[in-house]
Amino acid sequence: MTTVLISGLGLIGSSMARIMKQSDVQPTILGDDPNDDTSQFLLDQGIIDERVTLLNAASRADIIVLAGPVSVIIGQLGQLVKTKLKPNALVTDVGSTKMQVMAASKPLQERNIAFMGGHPMAGSHKTGARAGKEDLLDNAVYFLVDGSQTATQTALFKACLEPAKLRWVTMSAEAHDGLVSEISHVPHVLAANLVNTADHQLKHDAVGLNAAAGGFKSTTRIAGADPTMWTAIMLSNSEVISEQLTSYMKQLKQIQSAIETHDADQIYQFFAHAQSVRERLDREGETR
Amino acid sequence: MTTVLISGLGLIGSSMARIMKQSDVQPTILGDDPNDDTSQFLLDQGIIDERVTLLNAASRADIIVLAGPVSVIIGQLGQLVKTKLKPNALVTDVGSTKMQVMAASKPLQERNIAFMGGHPMAGSHKTGARAGKEDLLDNAVYFLVDGSQTATQTALFKACLEPAKLRWVTMSAEAHDGLVSEISHVPHVLAANLVNTADHQLKHDAVGLNAAAGGFKSTTRIAGADPTMWTAIMLSNSEVISEQLTSYMKQLKQIQSAIETHDADQIYQFFAHAQSVRERLDREGETR
Repeated sequence: MTTVLISGLGLIGSSMARIMKQSDVQPTILGDDPNDDTSQFLLDQGIIDERVTLLNAASRADIIVLAGPVSVIIGQLGQLVKTKLKPNALVTDVGSTKMQVMAASKPLQERNIAFMGGHPMAGSHKTGARAGKEDLLDNAVYFLVDGSQTATQTALFKACLEPAKLRWVTMSAEAHDGLVSEISHVPHVLAANLVNTADHQLKHDAVGLNAAAGGFKSTTRIAGADPTMWTAIMLSNSEVISEQLTSYMKQLKQIQSAIETHDADQIYQFFAHAQSVRERLDREGETR
Repeated sequence: MTTVLISGLGLIGSSMARIMKQSDVQPTILGDDPNDDTSQFLLDQGIIDERVTLLNAASRADIIVLAGPVSVIIGQLGQLVKTKLKPNALVTDVGSTKMQVMAASKPLQERNIAFMGGHPMAGSHKTGARAGKEDLLDNAVYFLVDGSQTATQTALFKACLEPAKLRWVTMSAEAHDGLVSEISHVPHVLAANLVNTADHQLKHDAVGLNAAAGGFKSTTRIAGADPTMWTAIMLSNSEVISEQLTSYMKQLKQIQSAIETHDADQIYQFFAHAQSVRERLDREGETR
């Protein structure tokens, strides 16, 4: 019988609990969340088997999943070093950035506790346990960063999440942080900045943002995301995000200059290239 | 019996034909499109009643809707000046920008032909007559810019589109172009630039863009739009778009600096403000 402890039962943590319950492993799931209401809701629904606190229940777990924000994960890694764990326990996390987390896991690894970094690429502008769902991670990429785990521990963890048909991708913490900055962190900054700029410019316009069609709404959907979580992500990957924003602005200035000088060829190439890349992304999504 | 001539039977033009066919006015619809296949398809479907060319059929129309790209509309306005029209005919357009169009309509207005600028705020990343649909404009904002039309002519035009339950908003050409730049043109540039920058950075990354979750996809959906149409829009509203891109980058540099200096308060305020504006936009969309 496998026992999994999930600390942080928000959108991702609670969805992972739901998925694990469908797996052949059928683990016992211990759930820890600072919000009593959340834990009780998941217990009532049978999604977790027991309400616990991380430090009191850690010694009973074969797998410990830290599913809070990165700042919380880092604190928890420091506490787990001082906590008795099963000799074969695997500690893993779902944090959105990996360089800080891997660094913070070093003392644990030095104590011969297996740690593996992880990050499922899914999400929603909704948050919380009630928004979690069994199919949230279906066909998603799940990044793994090797720490000190054994192949057996990795296999057991993957088996617990088998129902989601994840695409497992192993990479270095540095490569991970660069990639997710590009496809997730920077887009969040851009979308939020668009909403704020448009709101500022149109604040005295009677029609204003209300005239926006579906294009504006889809482009800015992710700006509705939880500000606490996104502040933590910015702080934990600030260097990479800032560099990529600089590249983004450099490109933006080039197209701005083409617009100013009415360089129709360059403008057309800009939009045509974007269209072809974007269409490829949809096609590849569909054929999976 | 009212006769409407629609020139340009793409997404918007063909959707307007579909809507007009459902109206109590039940106009006869003459359709003009450079693409034979498009016109024949719409004729076969009963969405238009007759295939015509703009200049040959203009004299039969009570309402002429110019539904091509802005550059085409401007050329057509020049041709209509030299064409015999019904004395009470209303000429209108659906172009995405209005300052250039209103200027180009001056000679027509001086000939005592009624002109009214128009722009329905709807669209799709899809284009073409087959993507058109009866409900494309449902509850959308339809901008009107006063030219020389009479109240009776405006009323007849609105009656033709009554099934779409449009939100009619009259404003000046200048105010219109500033507003749509903010809520449509600039977002298109930003989305296309994000796709191009990410593609460039990740081109040698085996996982790359394929790891993108729904957030990246929705943020960049509009980058799949037709490059020809968007090049024309950029050229016809270049000054406003460029100014607003400058404002956007100014704000972006501020948040970049806050990220670099780990100014958690400012980052939080940035995301929290965007979240509140974005949620208001969804709420107001739902209560309409």
